[in-house]
Amino acid sequence: MARHPSLTPINARPFAPVTGLMLPAIAATADPLLEHALRQRLQPAGHPAQALGRLQALALQLARIQHGAAGAFHRLRLEAPQLVVFAADHGLADEGLGDQPQSTTRDLVQQLLEGTAPASVLAQRQGFAVTVVDAGVATPMAAPSSGRSAARLQLRKIGFGTRNCRLGPAMSVAQAVAAIHAGMDVVRHLPGNVLALGDVGAGNTASAALLLARLCGVPLSDAFPGESTGVDGEGRDPHLQRLEKLQMAMQRHAQALSPVHALAAFGGFETAMLVGAMLQGASERRVVIVDGLLGGAAALVARGLSPNVTDHLVHAQRASVASHRLMLIHLQAQPLLDLELDIHQGTAGLLAWPLIQAAQALLDASA
Amino acid sequence: MARHPSLTPINARPFAPVTGLMLPAIAATADPLLEHALRQRLQPAGHPAQALGRLQALALQLARIQHGAAGAFHRLRLEAPQLVVFAADHGLADEGLGDQPQSTTRDLVQQLLEGTAPASVLAQRQGFAVTVVDAGVATPMAAPSSGRSAARLQLRKIGFGTRNCRLGPAMSVAQAVAAIHAGMDVVRHLPGNVLALGDVGAGNTASAALLLARLCGVPLSDAFPGESTGVDGEGRDPHLQRLEKLQMAMQRHAQALSPVHALAAFGGFETAMLVGAMLQGASERRVVIVDGLLGGAAALVARGLSPNVTDHLVHAQRASVASHRLMLIHLQAQPLLDLELDIHQGTAGLLAWPLIQAAQALLDASA
Repeated sequence: MARHPSLTPINARPFAPVTGLMLPAIAATADPLLEHALRQRLQPAGHPAQALGRLQALALQLARIQHGAAGAFHRLRLEAPQLVVFAADHGLADEGLGDQPQSTTRDLVQQLLEGTAPASVLAQRQGFAVTVVDAGVATPMAAPSSGRSAARLQLRKIGFGTRNCRLGPAMSVAQAVAAIHAGMDVVRHLPGNVLALGDVGAGNTASAALLLARLCGVPLSDAFPGESTGVDGEGRDPHLQRLEKLQMAMQRHAQALSPVHALAAFGGFETAMLVGAMLQGASERRVVIVDGLLGGAAALVARGLSPNVTDHLVHAQRASVASHRLMLIHLQAQPLLDLELDIHQGTAGLLAWPLIQAAQALLDASA
Repeated sequence: MARHPSLTPINARPFAPVTGLMLPAIAATADPLLEHALRQRLQPAGHPAQALGRLQALALQLARIQHGAAGAFHRLRLEAPQLVVFAADHGLADEGLGDQPQSTTRDLVQQLLEGTAPASVLAQRQGFAVTVVDAGVATPMAAPSSGRSAARLQLRKIGFGTRNCRLGPAMSVAQAVAAIHAGMDVVRHLPGNVLALGDVGAGNTASAALLLARLCGVPLSDAFPGESTGVDGEGRDPHLQRLEKLQMAMQRHAQALSPVHALAAFGGFETAMLVGAMLQGASERRVVIVDGLLGGAAALVARGLSPNVTDHLVHAQRASVASHRLMLIHLQAQPLLDLELDIHQGTAGLLAWPLIQAAQALLDASA
């Protein structure tokens, strides 16, 4: 708390205030003077104006994030990068909407703690400290008893998984607020100014689809990945059945329109903590690297609460699911990578990190 | 020569042999047993089969390149990465087809030697040794007299720029052969097993377009970047005028159908050296990283001479020009990055390098 701006009660713009929610102030980063100066510096001599393409846009974003005021431009300094992976289970997993059993969540967290996950391998290579947060896994979690852990485990369990949102809200508004605050608190105590975020949660694709549908008005059939593959032996179309279940969830929570109420109705504990982490990271002028569909869903909620947060978000990848492309359009985001990854845990953020470093190096070299 | 396979006279498949051209043998890398074993190892536990997307395909390619035979699988070892940038001028530049004056070539080479080019900055960050080859710049080139050079300059000038291919072949077949051999020779004397290739040459976009049109049967209007922006004050459409000039060049060299004859008719000295570098790199089982439109044009020629070369090529990026997308389709290549770059000199190869290292790290970790 010593580090950063005063917390102000949320002025939930078109929506009623949410009791107890305290959000950090996030300054807009736009600065036309800085922008103009940097654009000129970033054009390599003898090349067209846009020669560096998206790398130029990325370098400008990094500069805007790190420079609160116009004036003398110092070299950028990206320090002590952190990977934070939030893990939780979803009540929706009971409905058989995903391909993974609920136990996957626990297993993937275990891989991160043991250092065998792809994200662990990349984090170690690239000097990221890894924090895994149990936001609400359905079973008790503990750090591996023997050997050195590849990640720090933080126990911040809000509950043993959310409830099935077909039957009621996934979590109470009070739980959503507590989870947002927990995500903020996790980030507040981490060093550095680079924050890669990841998630683990069996069933969270459906949860992200519901948030996309509700917050952006996208038809559920576009928001939920997958397509009809015909009827099964008993004349039923599994994909249509899944969509019907989700449609019922949408109808049950027809009044959950504000970002926080939609989050409570459909989201996961890891989603809510991601929202808090993004807001806190942005308020501290960190570079926040977002990965995949669930990261995008959290970004939609965070943007609803504090529009300036988007200035600080770097979207690592366009994920392989078509609905993520749609989500990125709604986020007006151009991701750095398009490698058809179908893996979370912040893997794409770590893969994109060298591009961020390259953009920084080019900006520094032009000084 | 001690290092590698015997040189065999080219068996230029449907085409007549080219006098004097000696190409290295390139082994195919396909190995179904290795492939099967690696695919299983590369699937992270608890994830879908294709979770790593193109990174998986890249890791498999790296493994195939480095493992000549099935059997015990050792860790990959990517060593002493080299960036080689070939520079030359094009007679076509006289026709006003590009936006850059011919002097750009010399200036960009100078930037590389002084270490101020974006590629220099990235090469230094990532531990690439840089070699700049004067394949045929229109002016005499020399290393900077004062200070330490950021790149080694090799003088391999075939001529002071190619001729204008509207008026005759850009180079003689003997020059094309000499340039291919020079490119082979440059690579043969470099250490390591990673070769990033780049090019500098004002006007080489048009040259690449002519090669794409001739070698793949693509209409010139699709192969040459740019589009009509209407007529000028004198009722002329500059884009159509450029296309007409190129069409005349195509007609003048209607008989230049074989890869080497098309290269001689339309190519540049840097293109021909790139072809030699790719073939030599592949014959030595190096990972060859290709950048942009001219790299793609050289890959088309190299593939025509020795189809197995493609197994060794990693295409770094989809460049911003639409014709490069078309070229990649003809090369059946999926590039790693799509950052709308409009810069050459191997910049994209250096940006893609961390992804190659990441693929290697994931493969090693799975061992």
